[in-house]
Amino acid sequence: MITVILSHPQMGENIGATARAMQNFGLSSLRLINPRDGWPNERANAVSSGALERMENVAVFDSLNDAVADMHYVIGTSARQRDMVKKVLSPESAAFEIAQRHDQNIAIIFGAERTGLLNDEVALCNALLTVPLNPEFSSLNLAQCVLLVLYEITKDKYAAGEPVSSVIDYGGSYPASRQEIANFLNRLERDLDAGRFFREEGLRPTMIRNIQSFFTRADITEQEVRTLHGMLSALRGNKTRNQ
Amino acid sequence: MITVILSHPQMGENIGATARAMQNFGLSSLRLINPRDGWPNERANAVSSGALERMENVAVFDSLNDAVADMHYVIGTSARQRDMVKKVLSPESAAFEIAQRHDQNIAIIFGAERTGLLNDEVALCNALLTVPLNPEFSSLNLAQCVLLVLYEITKDKYAAGEPVSSVIDYGGSYPASRQEIANFLNRLERDLDAGRFFREEGLRPTMIRNIQSFFTRADITEQEVRTLHGMLSALRGNKTRNQ
Repeated sequence: MITVILSHPQMGENIGATARAMQNFGLSSLRLINPRDGWPNERANAVSSGALERMENVAVFDSLNDAVADMHYVIGTSARQRDMVKKVLSPESAAFEIAQRHDQNIAIIFGAERTGLLNDEVALCNALLTVPLNPEFSSLNLAQCVLLVLYEITKDKYAAGEPVSSVIDYGGSYPASRQEIANFLNRLERDLDAGRFFREEGLRPTMIRNIQSFFTRADITEQEVRTLHGMLSALRGNKTRNQ
Repeated sequence: MITVILSHPQMGENIGATARAMQNFGLSSLRLINPRDGWPNERANAVSSGALERMENVAVFDSLNDAVADMHYVIGTSARQRDMVKKVLSPESAAFEIAQRHDQNIAIIFGAERTGLLNDEVALCNALLTVPLNPEFSSLNLAQCVLLVLYEITKDKYAAGEPVSSVIDYGGSYPASRQEIANFLNRLERDLDAGRFFREEGLRPTMIRNIQSFFTRADITEQEVRTLHGMLSALRGNKTRNQ
């Protein structure tokens, strides 16, 4: 199921227009994080053209953490590059990603009108979604952004669809080489051995493979490998610092 | 070249929002047929956020016939079935059709807010375009309709990257919920604290965000969260086993 989350929305009109866009595309689950003017909101009702009445109750949260607690995959919308390693999806590739996860709880988050999503909010997202716009004129209001995103990710429901593209924004860092990853994983295995993590020798290859799979799936950067080494040293209480 | 034509638009705001959407997607040629409140229009200027100033002069016509005289292919937008034999395109098939005719003059016509295109106007179109919407809630205002149509027919121009298809194989496990991930990250932070990982308090928020970013990017499963907990326990030498 797809849930739309508006983080710190300022104008009731935009909440109403979001509800309207959601109903245009058959969605009913809306969550708000600290709406500036409180909730319920008269202007939201007026603008929604009856959409709010057709939907589930709108849930209001104090923090994004709480709002996404029951979600499996979280997509943040962003107009600009971030200093973080995040998968950046086009609306089409987001649609594809969501279609693959049809049995999961998916959240699509839109930031406040003036600021967009904050970096702390972006950090909680599995991926970012950017709407392709003319770089020389890319002002799009909140409700318009909601409309375009929901159109793309639901259109297969009301018509027929197709392809995908996805680019990863490495935020200035560089992807780690396989060697760097292998070095880290070797050290991790030694440290886990020292802590008697592998209780049954027969299961070791499977466990190693699963750990590898996890660390490679994340598209890890050089900087992150260094951080992980630092974390290992801290967790082992410096026992392996000088190896 | 693509020209947008608004037939008998009533509200200046919608003309301004149309101009804005056109600039969002890099289009500059707008024509009006008998705008109710005349032209130029102050409210159109206000709503356009500078888009009108960036465009060619808006041309005003008395009839659709005159407005499309130099066009090679005319697409009318319509929310409903017509009693006429017309090719009906989805936004995607319209995009394809337009791409085939890149050296032609293409017009996309939007009818008046209240009535949509009149049958006489539809008769002049080569094809109709309908945006796929929830049939039970299909009210879409004029400017929103323009936005969706222009997004679809221009998006290849601003899209990044090439077609990719990505499927995540969860290997029988289920994606972890945000709550499960948050619990793990909280424990990890405590354990890192105990190992004096955060040497400079000022850098803690950034480091936490980077760690979060890494673990959410990996599309972690429930099984993997359990494995990570086990790894932490082993690395800490059971110090945290029973927390």
